[in-house]
Amino acid sequence: MADPRIARISNAIRAIPDFPKKGIMFRDITTLLLDPAAFQDSIDLFVARYKDQGIQVVAGIEARGFIFGPPLALALGAKFVPLRKPRKLPGPTIGVDYSLEYGTDRIEMHVGAVQAGERVVIIDDLIATGGTMGAGIALIDQAGGKVVETACLIELTDLKGREKLGNTPLFVLVEYEGE
Amino acid sequence: MADPRIARISNAIRAIPDFPKKGIMFRDITTLLLDPAAFQDSIDLFVARYKDQGIQVVAGIEARGFIFGPPLALALGAKFVPLRKPRKLPGPTIGVDYSLEYGTDRIEMHVGAVQAGERVVIIDDLIATGGTMGAGIALIDQAGGKVVETACLIELTDLKGREKLGNTPLFVLVEYEGE
Repeated sequence: MADPRIARISNAIRAIPDFPKKGIMFRDITTLLLDPAAFQDSIDLFVARYKDQGIQVVAGIEARGFIFGPPLALALGAKFVPLRKPRKLPGPTIGVDYSLEYGTDRIEMHVGAVQAGERVVIIDDLIATGGTMGAGIALIDQAGGKVVETACLIELTDLKGREKLGNTPLFVLVEYEGE
Repeated sequence: MADPRIARISNAIRAIPDFPKKGIMFRDITTLLLDPAAFQDSIDLFVARYKDQGIQVVAGIEARGFIFGPPLALALGAKFVPLRKPRKLPGPTIGVDYSLEYGTDRIEMHVGAVQAGERVVIIDDLIATGGTMGAGIALIDQAGGKVVETACLIELTDLKGREKLGNTPLFVLVEYEGE
């Protein structure tokens, strides 16, 4: 029997056709954020998943991972580490380049934000092709951290993003087949 | 006597000279996020400030306002509304343009995210010249919301950002004179 909170979360996510371009069905979590009970449910489900796993760092991917990561980190008593687009972080950084459909992108993290051996969860709102999350794993690896799991509210299953994550598990709350 | 939590927060904020350009002393809150107790203190101070004020919406300014806004919104049982850079939000938006040192920028919000008459706090990590926060106030006004107060961890007092906020109060945890 499915947790009834999952249906409440799923119902609060809005589908927007043709964003950012024609043919894409965008899953919009901003409507979930307008439903405080459902937003809290989503955080509670992540907290329940990770509270007994010795997580020391929650790393959030810019920008929507910044919305879900901090409430989880605070509940776990863990650090929050932002993984940002290039040239946003003011201190010395390490970074990983990754491929997009056209061209490449890069995510960066402050040097010293994750210490060798620390147990990390990486969080984002959604996994599509998995390029960004795969780069996040590589970035934490580069710092010597241990990515225990990756976590997303939403998985677009047809896009097979899981296959970009190697041996790192992915935990999701809601799945959609890609359109 | 100052709240001892303020000193803990202040000590956890790092100063980085010459970012994003020469002569600027950047106040970096990412080191605060690595200190779970101090990060929690900052949220607790905001919650204490707003818990009895009937706040219905916490609006966070992209991107670092996304880090502090959601924990506050969840603690208050309020909605969280992201105020974003142009073309990031997938649904219909309203927006406000504002001036930068060179050129202009714009922030946007989803239509319907704030309802007429709702009591709103706008949060960001830092107020400098106040251009973005002033635009945020104008944006909530445009939707018919009531900005009860604006809230930042850090105020760079020499830059007089408060003067851009009209009659809307500003609450801050830590002040620095600008360099």
